[in-house]
Amino acid sequence: MEAVDRIFPSDPGVMEAPRATAATGTLYGVGMGPGDPDYLTVRAVRVLERAAVLVHFCKQGRRGNARTIADAVLARDPARELSLAYPYTTELHPEHPDYVAALGAFYDDAAGRLADHLGAGRDVAILSEGDPFFYGSFMHLWRRLKDRFPVEVVPGVTGMSGCWTRAATPITWGDDVLTILPATLPAAVLTERLARTDAAVIMKLGRHLPKVRAALREAGLLARAVYVERGTMAGERVVPLSDKADDAAPYFSMVLVPGEGRRP
Amino acid sequence: MEAVDRIFPSDPGVMEAPRATAATGTLYGVGMGPGDPDYLTVRAVRVLERAAVLVHFCKQGRRGNARTIADAVLARDPARELSLAYPYTTELHPEHPDYVAALGAFYDDAAGRLADHLGAGRDVAILSEGDPFFYGSFMHLWRRLKDRFPVEVVPGVTGMSGCWTRAATPITWGDDVLTILPATLPAAVLTERLARTDAAVIMKLGRHLPKVRAALREAGLLARAVYVERGTMAGERVVPLSDKADDAAPYFSMVLVPGEGRRP
Repeated sequence: MEAVDRIFPSDPGVMEAPRATAATGTLYGVGMGPGDPDYLTVRAVRVLERAAVLVHFCKQGRRGNARTIADAVLARDPARELSLAYPYTTELHPEHPDYVAALGAFYDDAAGRLADHLGAGRDVAILSEGDPFFYGSFMHLWRRLKDRFPVEVVPGVTGMSGCWTRAATPITWGDDVLTILPATLPAAVLTERLARTDAAVIMKLGRHLPKVRAALREAGLLARAVYVERGTMAGERVVPLSDKADDAAPYFSMVLVPGEGRRP
Repeated sequence: MEAVDRIFPSDPGVMEAPRATAATGTLYGVGMGPGDPDYLTVRAVRVLERAAVLVHFCKQGRRGNARTIADAVLARDPARELSLAYPYTTELHPEHPDYVAALGAFYDDAAGRLADHLGAGRDVAILSEGDPFFYGSFMHLWRRLKDRFPVEVVPGVTGMSGCWTRAATPITWGDDVLTILPATLPAAVLTERLARTDAAVIMKLGRHLPKVRAALREAGLLARAVYVERGTMAGERVVPLSDKADDAAPYFSMVLVPGEGRRP
């Protein structure tokens, strides 16, 4: 905390969120960036050091990646930690009624637990991979709590920025249109959207990589596509998609199609 | 420098870029984030403190915004500063032959000046608004220098992340498609792309706001559009686009169309 304060000694508390009452905690959504802890923002570090309760999402029995990123700045203190294990991750389709019902109940329950902390005056920080308002789970708790407690969102470097940085390729030049597509979309939609953009990022690859390859081929973009796995993290891998022989794609992977716009 | 080192005392030099030779400097592209200096990354602060030469782009006779962001972390030291004034900004269309020729010569000349510093062993940091590989001018120098000198790009929080954060609205939920559009595109292209996306960010508004309004209306998205001016900076303004009576839009403004995807 002192270290970060010293960076901006002339700026004490400028960014402090408004307090509803002295007895109410603030809900923070903290963008944890793409993975490398050096890409945390100064504000994120400050909030992580100060918040009474540190919340992260995880798979059952696993530690969440957002929490792992924080290891570089936080000493272990089990008393501050609250992990929220999803009832499902990839076992069911996100539109399956059982998935929707279970996730809804999970978020309701989690929001209730956080409300107890906030109501008791404890600041709660939800650690969010990338940027809190760009996909992700934070916003499902945010929408349940935002009208009852003060909120501050700390934007973060997105996973896709981390990936195009490590792929050493600008993503957009001049007037390029950039389209960001979840790989979960139907093949025909992927192909159609890819055919009408200058640059693309395809996220949430998982088991959808064969479909994504086919859509890129159909749209004439396969030769430009770059596959990035665990960008900015240990085990990082960057390879032209056409050089990747297998179709295995872990959660932290995406495909980039760099733009080719104006270059004076 | 000491302050930042203390944040990651166990991680000395992990992120140092490779050096070609002891006598060659490294070219850094430093993402300065959306405007609020608290959204600088830890890595950006460290590079800014150490680089021998700090480069920023600006309009003739003006100080660049990327350099202003750095005021929070840098003492004034004219000996380290190099400002690069564009020959044109909005006076000519970017596809006008005079514009293209003048910009090309400007980047060639600037790259030559930076090469002199790098060749003499001085590290050069180019301060880039937002993220260095997402639009912007850094990449025009990068492509002229990247094969001759070691390079490290430091990704940044994008201006659009800063804007949707301050607009207090998630931009994408679930499987939303996000399309990023320069307002400089023809009206018909804007309308067509907007009609086929779930969420949108329209950048580079300038004098194009009337055209953007018409395209949003045509695509049925005007009621959802939010106008953000100087997001995260002094003079910040957030307003539903339909409540904005005039068509004035400064350089640091954009329109957001938040997605409405899956919300369990």
